[in-house]
Amino acid sequence: MKIRLVLSLVGIISIFMGLSMLLSMFVSLAYEEERVAMWIGVSSMIAIVAGAACFKQYKPREGELGLKEGFGIVGFSWLVASLVGSLPFMLSGSIPNFAMAFFESASGLTTTGSTILNEIESLPKGILFWRSFLHWLGGMGIIVLSVAILPYLGLGGMQLYKAESPGPTKDKLEPRIQQTAKLLWGVYLLVSLLCFLLLWLAGMNLYDAACHTFGTVATGGFSTYNASIAHFHSPLIQYIIIFFMLICGISFALHYRALSGEPKSYLQTSELRFYLFIIFAATFIIYFSRLDTQIPVEQNFRESLFQVVSIITTTGYGTADFEQWKPITHVVLLALMLVGGCAGSTGGGMKVVRILLLTKYLKIALNQQLHPSGVFVIKIDGKRVKREVIQNILSLGMVYIFIILLASFFLSLYGVDVLTSFTASLSCVSNIGPGLGDVGPTENFSSIPTPGIWILSLCMIMGRLEIFSLLILFLPQTWQR
Amino acid sequence: MKIRLVLSLVGIISIFMGLSMLLSMFVSLAYEEERVAMWIGVSSMIAIVAGAACFKQYKPREGELGLKEGFGIVGFSWLVASLVGSLPFMLSGSIPNFAMAFFESASGLTTTGSTILNEIESLPKGILFWRSFLHWLGGMGIIVLSVAILPYLGLGGMQLYKAESPGPTKDKLEPRIQQTAKLLWGVYLLVSLLCFLLLWLAGMNLYDAACHTFGTVATGGFSTYNASIAHFHSPLIQYIIIFFMLICGISFALHYRALSGEPKSYLQTSELRFYLFIIFAATFIIYFSRLDTQIPVEQNFRESLFQVVSIITTTGYGTADFEQWKPITHVVLLALMLVGGCAGSTGGGMKVVRILLLTKYLKIALNQQLHPSGVFVIKIDGKRVKREVIQNILSLGMVYIFIILLASFFLSLYGVDVLTSFTASLSCVSNIGPGLGDVGPTENFSSIPTPGIWILSLCMIMGRLEIFSLLILFLPQTWQR
Repeated sequence: MKIRLVLSLVGIISIFMGLSMLLSMFVSLAYEEERVAMWIGVSSMIAIVAGAACFKQYKPREGELGLKEGFGIVGFSWLVASLVGSLPFMLSGSIPNFAMAFFESASGLTTTGSTILNEIESLPKGILFWRSFLHWLGGMGIIVLSVAILPYLGLGGMQLYKAESPGPTKDKLEPRIQQTAKLLWGVYLLVSLLCFLLLWLAGMNLYDAACHTFGTVATGGFSTYNASIAHFHSPLIQYIIIFFMLICGISFALHYRALSGEPKSYLQTSELRFYLFIIFAATFIIYFSRLDTQIPVEQNFRESLFQVVSIITTTGYGTADFEQWKPITHVVLLALMLVGGCAGSTGGGMKVVRILLLTKYLKIALNQQLHPSGVFVIKIDGKRVKREVIQNILSLGMVYIFIILLASFFLSLYGVDVLTSFTASLSCVSNIGPGLGDVGPTENFSSIPTPGIWILSLCMIMGRLEIFSLLILFLPQTWQR
Repeated sequence: MKIRLVLSLVGIISIFMGLSMLLSMFVSLAYEEERVAMWIGVSSMIAIVAGAACFKQYKPREGELGLKEGFGIVGFSWLVASLVGSLPFMLSGSIPNFAMAFFESASGLTTTGSTILNEIESLPKGILFWRSFLHWLGGMGIIVLSVAILPYLGLGGMQLYKAESPGPTKDKLEPRIQQTAKLLWGVYLLVSLLCFLLLWLAGMNLYDAACHTFGTVATGGFSTYNASIAHFHSPLIQYIIIFFMLICGISFALHYRALSGEPKSYLQTSELRFYLFIIFAATFIIYFSRLDTQIPVEQNFRESLFQVVSIITTTGYGTADFEQWKPITHVVLLALMLVGGCAGSTGGGMKVVRILLLTKYLKIALNQQLHPSGVFVIKIDGKRVKREVIQNILSLGMVYIFIILLASFFLSLYGVDVLTSFTASLSCVSNIGPGLGDVGPTENFSSIPTPGIWILSLCMIMGRLEIFSLLILFLPQTWQR
């Protein structure tokens, strides 16, 4: 790997992060938090200067960017961005502990939404704005990563949407990454504006509407209130957030196609149908499991739907304490944590399309056992899926479980109980937010010992980068030139 | 599937089970439990008569046995044997509830060792003997199943030991199933006799020595005492049991090869090396996690080793309440539950060789990502492993997780909490015995509601048959002629 080349491009990320901080600085100033604004300004300067210093080190030439450098840039972008993002937390004194500031920043950028803060509302407005804005920036990164960059590196759930034969086909997105990024960001911006407007019209103030838009469209989950969305007692606001979480759990490439004159694309996508089916089934189960309580019908429906959509899209917002619900709810929500959103969305997890292909594959694997010499083909949306893609999904699934077990192992080494260890790891690798036990929906990650905080930060970044692209950086071969 | 043909062969199993009961009847008579002896006798008669009636239905012709019939026989053998095995429990009134009697019988035959009995010691001697003897019979079945039958059906961990090129090779076992069975049973009998003798010499009475030999060599886990092996305060007895659990977690085909003049085979098998390494590492971790307690060094070592060997071999015997140990122990033991014994042993779980291959595969999958057109080969013991074998392992892993989640889902539907649901399902699918929570090492499965008992019974049988061979029976195609 050409490390200086990688560093030079990662420098751009740092500069970009620094510039993004200026918006939070203005928010701080608007709320007359001069000291905080100053420290955000200092953070911004540090990020820009350090980024520029890295960038200046090396001038990349045409065609120099290989596979190894690609992986390097992807991995280091998220690590460096998380590091830079933690500066305002630390310098302003809001989160003085480095590990915790890094965790909060990584949680923002990976759109996980897990927090180590016990008391959110007492933090300065500018800092909370930055915290939520990290979600939105992370969401931008993820969309481009999953639709344009990872498939190019031979990874990611969108990979199987690549046409099997070379040459242009009608559903191929603009091949150049830059062009693709611009188109998708257009959709992302449009959805964000719409969400912002509706939340504002529904009664939120501008500040809350902005912060909760960031948390919703990036399927992040940071709120500016301790009670999360339960703070807003308005059912309308909750339904708006449900709608936008649901929308942002769908591929942005699909939204783009639909917006550019092919609305039928929605109906033709089996991943979307499966996603809606899972949401329907899970809501149904949870709704019925709560029928014997005294909760009114509409509230039961709303809370059940909210929790299902919040978890499957890996947002992690809460309107109720689901740990108090029946055990069946916990198993359903844990299963949804594994599933996650659609490929190409801002959601995390294994991705719906992978689960869909696994179910198709299971049926074929059984049939294959009965007819050892038979040739079976797996199709999705009428297109044949290559064997290697299936094998990639299977191995991702295994590595997923393996990483969760490994992280649980380290957490438990520091005395964290088994349910908390396991669900915290699952929640972080899938970029959800809450888990069960000591990291349940009404609690936070502040009880996790510092080494565990580092492990979970790594889990969040690893999960966000579909695991393999970060694991590759641990191979010695990657570092050879 | 030719159902009458399958039924006819399954009839033989029923007759065999009926004949096996006679030994328990004699034990009952020896302890002057006339009423119990009579009911065991009646059970035996029912099994033999019903079996003979099925057997008489159809006379199989040469070459009529296809793949479908093979799966049918494997699946129905265990279901019918579990059913027949529950007769003495029910008729003698020891376990009057059908679901619970079936569970106890299936737990015996699958060598799981989970029990629904709150009070073991009050049961008649003849019934407890039958309960333990079910383990031993199950162990016989498993060895032949995994070494001879499943590879022929294209399944199972031993499959990859098949030579890639056709024709005889020196490490091919006798090709005919009957011949293989006889050889392996010879080894099984030898190991059993040795274990029995040593336990007796170490101070157990003949009855206890026999019952605990059955539980040990079959890696089952039923004891005749409420306190399991902790009842015997003799460290010598505990070490003997550790040794034989360890031995029986190793492939019996390997033992046979070593006994027939190739002792070096042990050293040449990487699965065995990996198995011993895991045991060493896990014991080391648990031993050190308990150093701050006041337990003497030898006792700490013995209890840690005992628990590790008991869980990885999926025996489930206990000498201490590991739920009281530190959280790290729980995560280590849960991971060991997934691993299980070596392929071709009486142990359950995913099997060590599969985990070994998965780790090798992971490394290659990462390298493949860096060199998309590179050709990578996975080898084990110097032999190349086919891609399909790897794909089979990956899909087994996924189905494993899927079945555990599905079973947890159904258990939680009946109000079982999430930790208990999950670990009970994992324990049953891996044929271990204890879990955590309400099914912890000092508790039992009696708190699980009846529908859950049926689900877990199915899990035990499914796990024992490497999942796929039972799942295939749910395909409509299997039932077509």
